[in-house]
Amino acid sequence: MNILIVSAHPEPASLTHALRDVAATQLRADGHHVRHTDLYAEGWKSAVDGADFQALHGGTHPRETPRLHVPAASGAAFAAGTLTDDVRAEQAKLLWADALILAFPLWWFSMPAILKGWIDRVYSFGFAYGVGEHSDTRWGDRYGEGTLAGKRAMLLVTAGGWEAHYGPRGINGPMDDLLFPIHHGVLFYPGYAVLPPFVVYRADRLDDAAFDAAADALRTRMRGLFTTAPIAFRRQNGGDYLFPSMTLDPGIVSATGFAAHVRDPEPEAD
Amino acid sequence: MNILIVSAHPEPASLTHALRDVAATQLRADGHHVRHTDLYAEGWKSAVDGADFQALHGGTHPRETPRLHVPAASGAAFAAGTLTDDVRAEQAKLLWADALILAFPLWWFSMPAILKGWIDRVYSFGFAYGVGEHSDTRWGDRYGEGTLAGKRAMLLVTAGGWEAHYGPRGINGPMDDLLFPIHHGVLFYPGYAVLPPFVVYRADRLDDAAFDAAADALRTRMRGLFTTAPIAFRRQNGGDYLFPSMTLDPGIVSATGFAAHVRDPEPEAD
Repeated sequence: MNILIVSAHPEPASLTHALRDVAATQLRADGHHVRHTDLYAEGWKSAVDGADFQALHGGTHPRETPRLHVPAASGAAFAAGTLTDDVRAEQAKLLWADALILAFPLWWFSMPAILKGWIDRVYSFGFAYGVGEHSDTRWGDRYGEGTLAGKRAMLLVTAGGWEAHYGPRGINGPMDDLLFPIHHGVLFYPGYAVLPPFVVYRADRLDDAAFDAAADALRTRMRGLFTTAPIAFRRQNGGDYLFPSMTLDPGIVSATGFAAHVRDPEPEAD
Repeated sequence: MNILIVSAHPEPASLTHALRDVAATQLRADGHHVRHTDLYAEGWKSAVDGADFQALHGGTHPRETPRLHVPAASGAAFAAGTLTDDVRAEQAKLLWADALILAFPLWWFSMPAILKGWIDRVYSFGFAYGVGEHSDTRWGDRYGEGTLAGKRAMLLVTAGGWEAHYGPRGINGPMDDLLFPIHHGVLFYPGYAVLPPFVVYRADRLDDAAFDAAADALRTRMRGLFTTAPIAFRRQNGGDYLFPSMTLDPGIVSATGFAAHVRDPEPEAD
């Protein structure tokens, strides 16, 4: 199988990149093909701006172009094949990969800016959103369907804090909830099956023994990359949501919050 | 009072900037002082990297410096006063401002990369984290205490989707939960009192009447900027969390998830 690992850390010798290399080595040992996008090494441009869509306007300077409406410009450039070379190369890698791994340090409870900029720019209209039929009866292909359906995705996260601080009642908020905007909103949205994350806590204080233990656990996760059960997010078009409000069918669960969008492990009563 | 508005949209004529201007005009009419940080106009650098801490190493090229450990480098540069000029200027503005407003479009359920890069770089160790006593009995000044305590902060967000999709049972997840990593993890963490957000939905389809209504509502919010009750997040050092696990005291609430970190509106039983 083909795996793309996108990493976002300024230091080549960082824990993030050490774990990335552990993952890649294991995957290759198991016969998979691995490609990398090392965002810092590539000097990835983070900011969506008029320069991303210049080809739409015959290459004129963005300041001379009409008002920039990002979804419209993004969709027109995607349809015309005029997105910038760096973005098109990343989209091709996403189409090539059977699985995507995003490797990053948790900075301020989210991804580093350079990785958010990869999402903002690569996830163009027509590619990651605005996909499928939008009509009086259907709200497109998203949340379990879309361009990247049939593929798997997983986060490889290093966090500076203690695990207890990210627990169910920890002060930072539960890690699963902190990652929901990425798991559900970034990965499940364009179709990925999302695996449970691999998280290393107290990343700043990891000694050799703790690194070895983390590496072993990561190797196990890599061996199960295509067999581990994904997070059971509810599919938009699977019958669980009302149209067009896209709210959970009242008959399904009474819960609110992020957890309501994950199916129960037991079969549900009809 | 002094208000800093940080905005992140590539289009000067965007809804984000139109609403920013409505807010600034009202604040000035009420006698306040308003300053702006327009991240796109300033060409803000998003990526934390070795160049941010070059002065620590006598200006040598980052590739010739020791392994970059971001918290350590950030803390050393802050303590030595050698953070880059752009970062020091923003820290000075934050210290000047009695209130901070972050104005941005919701992209992939979070802030645009350029704004995340403002957080990642301006929130240095010693300024926004690693503040206060860290000992066997205290985990620093954070979550309600810290450098920015006594000040207020508020998000001004435009979202493309329908409000129902962001409701308590909407498919995107509740807006309050999606914003929790920013409200609690970015704003409350270094001390801000966090006001309820001002959110405009269906931002791509706003007609003149809807804009006028939104502008009126925003003016009302600006008039109440220093009187509106903040979100009642629990203070780390206010007695609600156990040390050192920093988990909620079992006697306080039985809830889990983000909502458990907000105090009940009614007085709690002891």
